[in-house]
Amino acid sequence: MKVAVLGHGVVGRRACEIIENAKDLELKWILELPDYATEPKMCSDLQTILDDPEVDVVADILPGTHPSYEYMKRALAAGKHVVTVNKAALCFGFEELMRLAEENGVTIRYEASCGGTIPDIAEAIKLSRTNEITSLYGIMNGTTNYIIDKMNTEGADFEPTLREAQSLGYAEKDPSADLSGFDVKNKLVILSATAYRGYCISDIPMFGIEKINRDILDNFRAQGKTVKLFGISVREEDRYAMAVLPVVLPLHDLEANVPRNFNLFTLNGSNCGTVKLYGQGAGGLPTADAVVRDIFAIRDTAEGIDGSYFVNELQYDPSLLRGKGYIDGMFYEGTAAELCAKAHSEGKFLAFETKLI
Amino acid sequence: MKVAVLGHGVVGRRACEIIENAKDLELKWILELPDYATEPKMCSDLQTILDDPEVDVVADILPGTHPSYEYMKRALAAGKHVVTVNKAALCFGFEELMRLAEENGVTIRYEASCGGTIPDIAEAIKLSRTNEITSLYGIMNGTTNYIIDKMNTEGADFEPTLREAQSLGYAEKDPSADLSGFDVKNKLVILSATAYRGYCISDIPMFGIEKINRDILDNFRAQGKTVKLFGISVREEDRYAMAVLPVVLPLHDLEANVPRNFNLFTLNGSNCGTVKLYGQGAGGLPTADAVVRDIFAIRDTAEGIDGSYFVNELQYDPSLLRGKGYIDGMFYEGTAAELCAKAHSEGKFLAFETKLI
Repeated sequence: MKVAVLGHGVVGRRACEIIENAKDLELKWILELPDYATEPKMCSDLQTILDDPEVDVVADILPGTHPSYEYMKRALAAGKHVVTVNKAALCFGFEELMRLAEENGVTIRYEASCGGTIPDIAEAIKLSRTNEITSLYGIMNGTTNYIIDKMNTEGADFEPTLREAQSLGYAEKDPSADLSGFDVKNKLVILSATAYRGYCISDIPMFGIEKINRDILDNFRAQGKTVKLFGISVREEDRYAMAVLPVVLPLHDLEANVPRNFNLFTLNGSNCGTVKLYGQGAGGLPTADAVVRDIFAIRDTAEGIDGSYFVNELQYDPSLLRGKGYIDGMFYEGTAAELCAKAHSEGKFLAFETKLI
Repeated sequence: MKVAVLGHGVVGRRACEIIENAKDLELKWILELPDYATEPKMCSDLQTILDDPEVDVVADILPGTHPSYEYMKRALAAGKHVVTVNKAALCFGFEELMRLAEENGVTIRYEASCGGTIPDIAEAIKLSRTNEITSLYGIMNGTTNYIIDKMNTEGADFEPTLREAQSLGYAEKDPSADLSGFDVKNKLVILSATAYRGYCISDIPMFGIEKINRDILDNFRAQGKTVKLFGISVREEDRYAMAVLPVVLPLHDLEANVPRNFNLFTLNGSNCGTVKLYGQGAGGLPTADAVVRDIFAIRDTAEGIDGSYFVNELQYDPSLLRGKGYIDGMFYEGTAAELCAKAHSEGKFLAFETKLI
């Protein structure tokens, strides 16, 4: 199988190495900016790649929504399978990409876009064949888990821990996409659509950890609890709800003990019960490995992902996701949507406790 | 795809239900004892099933080594794909079954034989394509985890906890295969062969939890630690070592916090890093779900499992698995094999601590 890789950064370079070492795969092209296109396999014009009839799969490892989204559309329209790491571009036009794949008789895979090396997308696909997946949730962002884990284990406060995470490369210079829950939201939407086999909305309640502090964690710890940033998605038949927000957990829960920048995804199915998947949610080599596993999946799996996969017509219903919200020392019952709105309007930290987890 | 199910017990019945509800699968035959063969699809003679040219897959859900092993051989020789839940039969003649599959151009899958619904076998297959898997370990037996978890959370001693587990159906009337580590050994051998893509020996060091007690757990807890029964397997290029034994863990480790009868498998790969998989290691419905996922995998996956999968010539080398053994209040350095032998000869409990985990 012949592969073109778009992008030659930290992940792209690693993906090229794994492809070149993999039996049965051949690296045909690398898309790179003109000034950096120094190797014979490199080119700077996507059309050269799309015009090459030998290319079977285009692996999109570009950052940001654009031009990744447009490039994926062009690749699909040219009859190439697509593998992408790009959750932003995927969320931007998920349904359109899937329909375009179907129209052109090709497929998309996106394991690395949600949870890096963790096989959450592959398992959602597999389990949804024999199960109705009724909920999924978990720690889906390594940066925020790193910060909370450090605060818990070293007793530090939020600001110095964030600065340390930035200096070590675990948090971006502008950490807002991680801290606000936006990064988790994109993953949650993509994973929910895959698990429920229906398109999902992406405008969902979201509350980050920007206002977390030492006192909040110490107070919960005194009650045998802690807080982690979660993506949560629940489904009852054709209705579903989602939210991203800090969740209260007993200290002995697996999620409470996830260390450093690791992620832990949970899927609940009607037959399989609870399945949890843990690993590196980011990092060049683990993410690149997921890209190459997707290429093998496209080669080996009769059922690819395209528009025909999303057979269920789903309705968003925020009333499915209810619980208790701790806001400024008080607690309130309500939906995740109501509690997020209340805490946002008051400018206070929100911690959500629900029987669904 | 047309399926014959051998056995109609707790798992077999559930598997039949899932197959009958699954798109693209058809339940053609159920092998059942003559007195119980009351439905039109039921028959009592394997040959009737093997002579039916429409049958694509034989799902072996029989208990015990025999006749499961002989039936699988006959099914493979008849050109049927095989799915099995039966770790004992698989361990009994692993290499012979794999070679027979290859000779007859068919494949075997065995997800449910190791860790019930947990996709440890499927992930080992997938990850081994792009990774050198360098170690695997974890909690691979629900009965022993249930007992230790109850002792830890409720402060009870071993004997009453075992009796409670028996009365609730979490432990067998004769619990020796679980308590001695024998059940874990079979899983560890099958999973190691799959992950390392080479045949492994099954005569490995083994130490169970029959001698665990309140004092041992309390002493470790006072040091911020606990003990769980582990299967451990490590590999360096073409050498490997394995052992089943109680392992000392910090209280905040994920494995230390695995509740009830759940299992947690860890795979370490050269690219993917650490991947952990958690779920129900037993139970009728979760195990049946894994059987049906295997049937889909045989239908959908170009690379099946047969003799050609096991390309690596591996050498067993117990010196790869070293650590510290706590025996009767003292500790000793050595290989897992040496420490198991010492504790067995002294009739004392062994707890193993290693940097490999």
